[in-house]
Formats: sequence, structure tokens, C-alpha cells
Amino acid sequence: MGIKLKLTGLRRFVRTEAEIADYTAQVAAAQDTLVSGTGAGNDFLGWLNLPVDYDRDEFARIKQAAKKIQQICDVLIVIGIGGSYLGARAAIEFVNGQFYNQVRPEGIPEVYFAGNNISSSYLNDIIKMIGDRDFCINIISKSGTTTEPAIAFRELKKLCESKYGKEGARERIFATTDKERGALKKLADDEGYETFIVPDDIGGRFSVLTPVGLLPMAAAGLDIDAVMAGAAASREEYSHGSLHDCARYAALRNLLLFKGKSMEIMVNYEPSLVMLGEWLKQLFDESEGKDHKGLFVTSANFSTDLHSIGQFIQDGSRIMFETVLWVKEPRSEITIEHTEEDIDGLNYLAGQTVQHVNQKAYEGTLIAHMDGGTPNIILEIDRTDAWHFGYLVYFFEKACGISGYLLGVNPFNQPGVEDYKKNMFALLGRSGFEERRKYLEARVKLED
Amino acid sequence: MGIKLKLTGLRRFVRTEAEIADYTAQVAAAQDTLVSGTGAGNDFLGWLNLPVDYDRDEFARIKQAAKKIQQICDVLIVIGIGGSYLGARAAIEFVNGQFYNQVRPEGIPEVYFAGNNISSSYLNDIIKMIGDRDFCINIISKSGTTTEPAIAFRELKKLCESKYGKEGARERIFATTDKERGALKKLADDEGYETFIVPDDIGGRFSVLTPVGLLPMAAAGLDIDAVMAGAAASREEYSHGSLHDCARYAALRNLLLFKGKSMEIMVNYEPSLVMLGEWLKQLFDESEGKDHKGLFVTSANFSTDLHSIGQFIQDGSRIMFETVLWVKEPRSEITIEHTEEDIDGLNYLAGQTVQHVNQKAYEGTLIAHMDGGTPNIILEIDRTDAWHFGYLVYFFEKACGISGYLLGVNPFNQPGVEDYKKNMFALLGRSGFEERRKYLEARVKLED
Repeated sequence: MGIKLKLTGLRRFVRTEAEIADYTAQVAAAQDTLVSGTGAGNDFLGWLNLPVDYDRDEFARIKQAAKKIQQICDVLIVIGIGGSYLGARAAIEFVNGQFYNQVRPEGIPEVYFAGNNISSSYLNDIIKMIGDRDFCINIISKSGTTTEPAIAFRELKKLCESKYGKEGARERIFATTDKERGALKKLADDEGYETFIVPDDIGGRFSVLTPVGLLPMAAAGLDIDAVMAGAAASREEYSHGSLHDCARYAALRNLLLFKGKSMEIMVNYEPSLVMLGEWLKQLFDESEGKDHKGLFVTSANFSTDLHSIGQFIQDGSRIMFETVLWVKEPRSEITIEHTEEDIDGLNYLAGQTVQHVNQKAYEGTLIAHMDGGTPNIILEIDRTDAWHFGYLVYFFEKACGISGYLLGVNPFNQPGVEDYKKNMFALLGRSGFEERRKYLEARVKLED
Repeated sequence: MGIKLKLTGLRRFVRTEAEIADYTAQVAAAQDTLVSGTGAGNDFLGWLNLPVDYDRDEFARIKQAAKKIQQICDVLIVIGIGGSYLGARAAIEFVNGQFYNQVRPEGIPEVYFAGNNISSSYLNDIIKMIGDRDFCINIISKSGTTTEPAIAFRELKKLCESKYGKEGARERIFATTDKERGALKKLADDEGYETFIVPDDIGGRFSVLTPVGLLPMAAAGLDIDAVMAGAAASREEYSHGSLHDCARYAALRNLLLFKGKSMEIMVNYEPSLVMLGEWLKQLFDESEGKDHKGLFVTSANFSTDLHSIGQFIQDGSRIMFETVLWVKEPRSEITIEHTEEDIDGLNYLAGQTVQHVNQKAYEGTLIAHMDGGTPNIILEIDRTDAWHFGYLVYFFEKACGISGYLLGVNPFNQPGVEDYKKNMFALLGRSGFEERRKYLEARVKLED
């Protein structure tokens, strides 16, 4: 089993088996709605069978492109925002750690993510880091007109063409985009870039197991066969019955919401899981934060954050619960050594591993937070390899779908993301937004 | 003025002037309690006058030590957790960006932060990154026995001594610790390390303007005179009257809490402010998250996170407000250029700066979120230089003190942080925790 669900930390907050039993019909209905494709947003369910039903030819092409990238460049710039970068970055750090660029093996390029903000300083730093080294670009955008990646790509494409010429640049730019429409697809066809497909039936936040996530992962040296195998194992594990652990997790988060918890903190005990936390925030907050509903999902990185927000989780407003992802085996180990003086008082730990200490911090925190009034749901995995990344992705995606239907929302749209964009386009003077511009500028004037 | 407070985004949620007026007596009382030192936690008010009342000799020594570090090493490892690293890291990224190590000027060492987690993988990566380069250590710990930094220091001290010998290591290890007591002070005296003082009357999360923050900042090339000057200007600005902007901000966050908002999201539009967000989370959550009270402070990085948690902020549960830190001038600029084809549709922005687009994203988001039911408090600053960092630090520290007294808590203790540690020590078998160990192990067994 890829994930062990432990509910020790819910004692005193939820009568787990009894309450889940009383909720069974709803959970089964939510899952049926998802799996049968009869619910809201059912044109975005391509991720459901993706782990067993993906384009093998394109998958082989991804591996070839990754190999080429590794051969011809020192730096790969991945341009994309939201679901077009979070999954790949989460995967690379999950497997290789936060310092993946600095500790990478021979033959693997540095990988940087651009086009996910509107900071000129950030983009200039990226260009400075490339320096005179060889680089490639993977531009990831369904439309090709999303402002953030479009700005970054305009700048970096220019740099690439001025360095390698049009001909050379075409060998170094890889476009992951719509299969037939859109500005980026047109450009890629005109220029002759190699392209990979963002499927029509998979939304951004569910796209990590498509070329969107797979090409950067493969270029960074990850075993994408293992990623897909992990996802397929997860799909199989959570395909039977209606009260498997994935459905139970989805049920429990909603039961805790009913009980007045308004926030779920995704907790890890490994810095390499920080970006997985960011991916989870998008997955759940964009899927469920609508119609003035939803559990707000945020993340915390322990033991680091036990020394910052830990006080609040222990004893502040009782509005939150934790979902803890515990990893049993670290990527590499250190054993604490005996010292003559023992000035730091650590000799009682001599001969123990650092991971042993981490584990006791985790167990001690679980009990402390439970005693303080913060419920815990625990998900245990063995290690942070590519297989487990795929396994976790599918677990959380399916849990999110079930949970969203339990909440009574369409988990697969994101209408609220357009609101700021429309205002931004209007204020920037984009054509088609003239009326809104007049209205907004009058308002800004009036209210300032 | 260092910060401009704008309350446009509170319209429809707070009758700002009227409600603040009705709250004046409480705000004045909270500020008096703080400034007169008559409230709970009043033995931890050393930060109040620190910007004008600090040890000039030690300050000069910090600059000398920084210069020495720059001369003798390629890599500086800063070991500390919570307040012993967040402030310095926030400052360095604020001024030089997230990629400060990769884009640093000649003569400045790379700076990495260790000892802020219990991950063997992370620590091994740090050691791998040092490689065979010259390095120094700044160990920051009041006691010297906090588990996370103690483990990292035991390992890195060993590495340093094996590489440079005892004599050489003594020149490369700088200890920031208690002025007379504790394990680290004793070790530093025994070994002959240069030491800097963590003052007795300043808690960890308020310590960034002490040597705790200043030595790493100076080593990374920051102008610490400007940092202190900014803080002094801020202290002066918010010393007069009881309804200055700092007090108004403190009042408004509590008024929003009274109105049912349970979460404050610290928002930025520059990736270089990500770690400032982490520093703010500690400052407020550790100060106010107690007695089952407090606004939960979290952070968001826009426009990045508009494509992840933006949907929730726009239209999810209406439990939050935003405090937006807007920076007018970027560290470096890019102008969007015209292209022949305009395939990405960005030509309407040709000749505009990227920061202009960022600004319209900020203005558009402000209105969108306000319209969606999420109030905004805006803090505008001119630029992210060292002076503004100091200014912001003091503004938030004082606001936090006032806000905590308004909430009726002791803003300067953190009793809840001990709970997980006691459990961890017991489960690890540390002497003195035998009874608790028996109790916990019985519980774990019973509940598992």
C-alpha cells in the first residue's frame, strides 16, 4: 500500500468509524458522481484514467526530448503559472530536495521556473543566472496568451534567438500547449517547435501527470515511468468500494468542516515537501473555494514552523486541523555522534539517526496538538521517490474530486480566477475592456 | 514617510474613521501599556528602543566580522531556527532577491540556512554544497541546546574542525548567544569563538535588529547602517499620538476579527518578499495565537498565488482579509517590446514596463477581492532596500505589540512552543522526562 491512513489524532474530535458510517451514502454518492462522470465539471475528468490511459507515443517523445535537453543545455527554463509549474516543481523537489540544482548529478541541467509572477527583478535574475551558458525553454500554456508566462516567454525567446539564431532557437524551445488551437500552438507550428499536448479534459491543477509536468520532471532526471506506475497503483487501490482510505479522507475533511474547523494545514517534516504543499494548496483551494464555501487549505513545514506558527496551532483560535504527511525513510541519513564534552547535551541521542529524532518530533507534536485541540489526520508513506509522488498525486486528486462533490461545488472550474484578470486587462487598456476600464477608473478615483 | 497606509479596500467592510474613533480609548490604552512597559511580558521590550539604543561597539564588531567572513570564505552557513534565522533570511531576500546566492556580487559568500529542521537529507545537501570550498559558521542560539540547531552544529563543527583543525575552526565559527549563560556561551568561551549577544529582553521573533539578524545580513553585503536608520525613522514616525498608522493598522486587524474574519493573509507582489511573509507569520502567530484566540496570519505571493489560492480568496468561505504590501519600484526593470507577429497578444503593452503590468494586477486584484467580499488593508513602500526593511520591521513589531494587548494576550511569550518539545524529549528518552515518557508510550500504544 502506498499510503497508510492513521486516525489516532482524531480521537476526541470525531467518532471516526461511526460518523463515517453515518455519512456512507453521501460519500458513495459523491464518488459515484465522480467516477460515472455525471456531476458538474464532468468535461474535466481526463485525469481519472490517465495513469493507465495515456498516449504512449507522446510519452516516449517526452523521454527523448528530455534526453536532448540534457545533452544540449546547462539550464532549462520552465515557463508557466499555477498548474503549469507547481506539479513539476513539487515533483523535482520531492525526489531531489530543495537544493536540486546545486546537488544534481552530472548530465542534468539546472532547472528554473519563470513566468509565474510579474516581477521584472525576478526575470532579470533568471537571465543573469543563465549568463553565457547554454539553455533551453519549455513554455507551458494552453492558450499562449496568459500574461505572466507570455511576458517571460517574449523576453526569453528573444534571448534564445539572439544567441542561437532562429534555427538554433527552434531546437531549444519546447512548447506544451493545446493540441490545435491557441496562440502558442500557432507559433509552435509556424516556428517548428516540438510540441506536447495539454489535454482538453484535464484542468491545470490536475495536469501534473500530463506532459505539463512530465517533461520538466524527465529533463530533471526523474523516472517518469515510476511516477506513472505509482499513479496507476493508486488508481487501482482506490477503485474498489466506497469507503477506501481516499474516500475516508475526503469524508473526514468535510466532517471536520461541519464541526466548525475552517482550515486544513498540510503538514510535512521534510523541506523537500514544501512545494508539494504549494501544489496541494492550489489543488484544494481552487477546487473547493467557491460559492462562499470550502475548507481553506494552507501548509506548514515542521519542525521549522513549529518555531513560528506552532504556538498558534497549539493554543490559538481552534479553527484548524492538520493533515500530516509523514515520510518514514529520508533520502539520506546522518547518525548523531558522541562527543567528549557533550556541551550541547545531545549525547543521549548518540548512535541515533537524525530521522529518529524527526520521528519523535512528529509523534510528540501529534499528541501535543491533539491535546491542545487541533485534530490530526495522518498519511504515512515510505519514501519520497518518483513512484510515491505519482501515488500521492492520484490519491489527492481523487480525494479532492470526492470532497468537492460532498461540499456541493463543481470541483473542476475556477470562475473566480478570471475576476482579477478582467480588472487587470481593463486597467492595462486592452481592447475589448473599454467599458470596464471607465467604470474601474471612476471607482478608483472616487474611492481613493 | 516609509509606509503609506491605504484603506480603500476596506470600504463596505469597516466604516474606518468612525469605527477607529469609537475604538480610540482601547487603542490608546494598548499603546500606553506597551510603551510604558506596564503590560504582560514587559521584560521583553528591549526591541522598542533598540533602533536608537544599541551597542555601537558590538555593531562595529559585527561589520568587522562580516568583512572577515567575506574575506576567508566562499560559503557561510547560518545555523538557527525560528527567530534565529527568519529575520536575516527575510532581509537578504528582500534586498537581493530569492536568487541572492546565484546573482551575488564578487566578494560576497553564498549564505545557506541550516539547523531549522530535523531533516538529514537537507543537512547532507548543505554539506554537499559546501564541497571543498572554504566556509564559515554563524551559530545562533540563546541556549545552545535547542535540538535542531544543536544537531546541525555538532555535524558542521566536526566538518570545520576536520578541515581546518581546532585552531583554524575557531577563526571560522561565530557564535550569537547569551551574554553569560548557556551551553553555547560556555563552548564559545572555551574554544575562543568570537561571540555576539542575544539580549535578555528581546524574544526570538523580535530579534532581527540584534546581532541575530545583523551579522548574517552584513556578511551577505547588506547595509546594516541603513537597516538601523530605517528602523529608527519608523520608531520616530510611530511615537507620536495614539492614532498613527501603526496603531490604526493594529486596530483595524482587531476590528476585522470582531467582525468574524479569522485569518489575515499577508500579500506581496514580489518573490523577494516570500521570506518576509514567513517572518510575519512567526511574528503575529506566535505573539497572538494563544488562549484559543488570535487572527491566524498566513501569506500569499501574487500574482503567483492568484493562480492557486486566488479562487478561494475571491469566492470561498468569507473568513479572511488581506494585508497587501505593495512595492512601487522594482529592484530592476524590463520594458515590454513590440514584436512583428504579436502572436501572444502583448503588443498593447509594448513600451510599458513589467512593473506597470504588476501594478495593474495589484489594482485590479484589490477591486476584485473587495467586490468578492475580501477586505484589503494596503501598505505601500517605495522600494525593497535595507532602509525600508528596517522601517517595516519596526512598524510590524510595534503593530504586533499594540494588537496583542488589544486582543488581551501577552504578545511576548510562547508557552505553546514547549508542548511538542516536552513530548519529543520524553519520547527520545532524555533524562528528566521519564514519567512523561511512560505516560506517552502507554497512550501511543492504547490509541494506535
